[in-house]
Amino acid sequence: MKFNVSSSDLNQGLSAVIGAVPTKATLPILETILFESEEGRLKLSATDLEISIIEYIDAEIEEEGAVAVPARRLLETLRQLPDINVFFEVDETQNVRFRTDKGNYKLVGEESDEFPEIPDMKEGVTLSTDTKLVQKAIGKTMFAVSTDDLRPAMMGVYFDIGGEESKFVATDGHRLVKFVNKNLTSEQPLNFIVPDKALNLVNKALDGGDCDMTVSNDHAQFKSGNTIIITRLINEQYPNYESVIPRDNDKELLIDKNQMLATVRRVSVFSSTTTRQIRLQLGSDKLTIRAEDLDMSSEAKETIACEYDSGEMEIGFNAKYLADVLNNVDGEEAKFEFSSPNRAGIVKPAEAEEGEEMLMLVMPVMLNSYA
Amino acid sequence: MKFNVSSSDLNQGLSAVIGAVPTKATLPILETILFESEEGRLKLSATDLEISIIEYIDAEIEEEGAVAVPARRLLETLRQLPDINVFFEVDETQNVRFRTDKGNYKLVGEESDEFPEIPDMKEGVTLSTDTKLVQKAIGKTMFAVSTDDLRPAMMGVYFDIGGEESKFVATDGHRLVKFVNKNLTSEQPLNFIVPDKALNLVNKALDGGDCDMTVSNDHAQFKSGNTIIITRLINEQYPNYESVIPRDNDKELLIDKNQMLATVRRVSVFSSTTTRQIRLQLGSDKLTIRAEDLDMSSEAKETIACEYDSGEMEIGFNAKYLADVLNNVDGEEAKFEFSSPNRAGIVKPAEAEEGEEMLMLVMPVMLNSYA
Repeated sequence: MKFNVSSSDLNQGLSAVIGAVPTKATLPILETILFESEEGRLKLSATDLEISIIEYIDAEIEEEGAVAVPARRLLETLRQLPDINVFFEVDETQNVRFRTDKGNYKLVGEESDEFPEIPDMKEGVTLSTDTKLVQKAIGKTMFAVSTDDLRPAMMGVYFDIGGEESKFVATDGHRLVKFVNKNLTSEQPLNFIVPDKALNLVNKALDGGDCDMTVSNDHAQFKSGNTIIITRLINEQYPNYESVIPRDNDKELLIDKNQMLATVRRVSVFSSTTTRQIRLQLGSDKLTIRAEDLDMSSEAKETIACEYDSGEMEIGFNAKYLADVLNNVDGEEAKFEFSSPNRAGIVKPAEAEEGEEMLMLVMPVMLNSYA
Repeated sequence: MKFNVSSSDLNQGLSAVIGAVPTKATLPILETILFESEEGRLKLSATDLEISIIEYIDAEIEEEGAVAVPARRLLETLRQLPDINVFFEVDETQNVRFRTDKGNYKLVGEESDEFPEIPDMKEGVTLSTDTKLVQKAIGKTMFAVSTDDLRPAMMGVYFDIGGEESKFVATDGHRLVKFVNKNLTSEQPLNFIVPDKALNLVNKALDGGDCDMTVSNDHAQFKSGNTIIITRLINEQYPNYESVIPRDNDKELLIDKNQMLATVRRVSVFSSTTTRQIRLQLGSDKLTIRAEDLDMSSEAKETIACEYDSGEMEIGFNAKYLADVLNNVDGEEAKFEFSSPNRAGIVKPAEAEEGEEMLMLVMPVMLNSYA
């Protein structure tokens, strides 16, 4: 195999696929990147057996071939190079020699057929959408994904794509987020759970305008520009989340999002470091947020203006979960819907964007009655 | 104690002293910051018993007093506040209540006389200099400070201030740096070793123009603007470093610093990850840098132009140490002085700045003769 490539093209390609290379691999071959010539281009592939990334880059192929090259060592060298032409030559014993104007380098590669097979997605259903839409849906839901191994279904975002709208859901049992988009639909309903790590890679590595999403029984593929990401799906039943969302929360509160977020952050400094519990006291057009830490005898209280007239109520939350949710509200105003202190609170942006719906839910915490 | 202070002044003051607050203190009182009213200003002090920082800030003192306040909790709250007026009130049981337009907060402080005494430096010798000079001397030498507990004398920068010049020296046995400045002198010769952590704080926390340096038997104080840093000195004999500096290195090499640094970094990727050994081959007006990793069968070779005509020679270095030293050369060109492959190499900037001298030394490594 022989080819000429620009160091910056190669660098960019390696940076795109390196996300799939495990830092500590059980199989040494996983620490390599597969180089293949394919129709006048160079195809780079990396996989950790769960997630694979493929990137095509322009190259001048002088002799067809394939080799698996140690990933990090190659990337480290290329990062130190200016934008320069690099000529690669691979011999039959997998010695990878490359040279630039600066000097000569040699690495030892592995046989390309040692490299694990990457699932081909010819069997799947393909939907055409755009990268921004997919990335927004992921960005809005990912924060609520569970890290609890004991509930594997919740360790990813649930994609539920129907004939009229698509729903993206994540929950860790303490909070839940449901993002609905009416512009992505599928004649054949699709639902699947994409694991956390793949979501991160889709958000980072994809930069084309259009995105083709292909779904088979076990895998999903996201293809955009020169990049393809293929991930194994979480083969579990997603919990019946709709039953958790309260339908009769009639106490509405409208509030400036940033002001409330700053207050929650300040007041929470004075809360117990173990429970992070803060209490919201709802009164006529005002919200008082309090925290106490009995161990440290510290306390804080702030009052902010809001729109509210559904009677006094006190409800407790974990400050971190409440801050995460508020942080995820688009626009300037947040709308809360409460029913009682022991029922979940609903949080939405006061105004949803065209063709979208956003609903978040936070579970309350029981308040101890020391006040 | 009662006082009014602007949150941004207090924030800036707390940020300056927090550097001395240990993250994990054996004595809980060390996790507090001492607030004292002093001549119409607020004096903040923090200490880890080795290093103390004092910062004066403007405040409107309504009632004199002193209290030790939990450092991190207060700083966290203040960081979340906009620029706003804060009113503090401390009662006789050390409850620290403060309020802003936003709300009310309470922390419990400690009695001020529990706070450790900070050494007063009335006995010491004081030199007036400027902050930039001190910070440059520290910045140029700190990288070579040893982290080896077994040789405590080398765990700091050696200040040797005489009648005609001052010398700042650091070494870890693998490399040595000597920075000489002719603008800082002392009628009474002073020499002392300042520990690493204090050097870092002096470089970060001091921002005034002038710097008063006071040295006693056990401590040094750096005073600049509203900030005072006091550190315990390392009470050891500094090694006789002058005897290590070769005087007869007559093979001179002049080279572009950035080009060589980039080459060292690239080539070193192919060196053994345990030894980081690279070899420099000096030839007529060219320098070839090579690395090999026998375990990985990888190798690299680059040649760069330079000015050299003292005969062929091959000398080995640890790439990291060589890169550190090169990185510390001011200006575009570096000047190397060698004698033989088993003697230390000297590195200097090709042109020293007015009133300064800079000399670095790198120990070679033994080359194995597989080439």
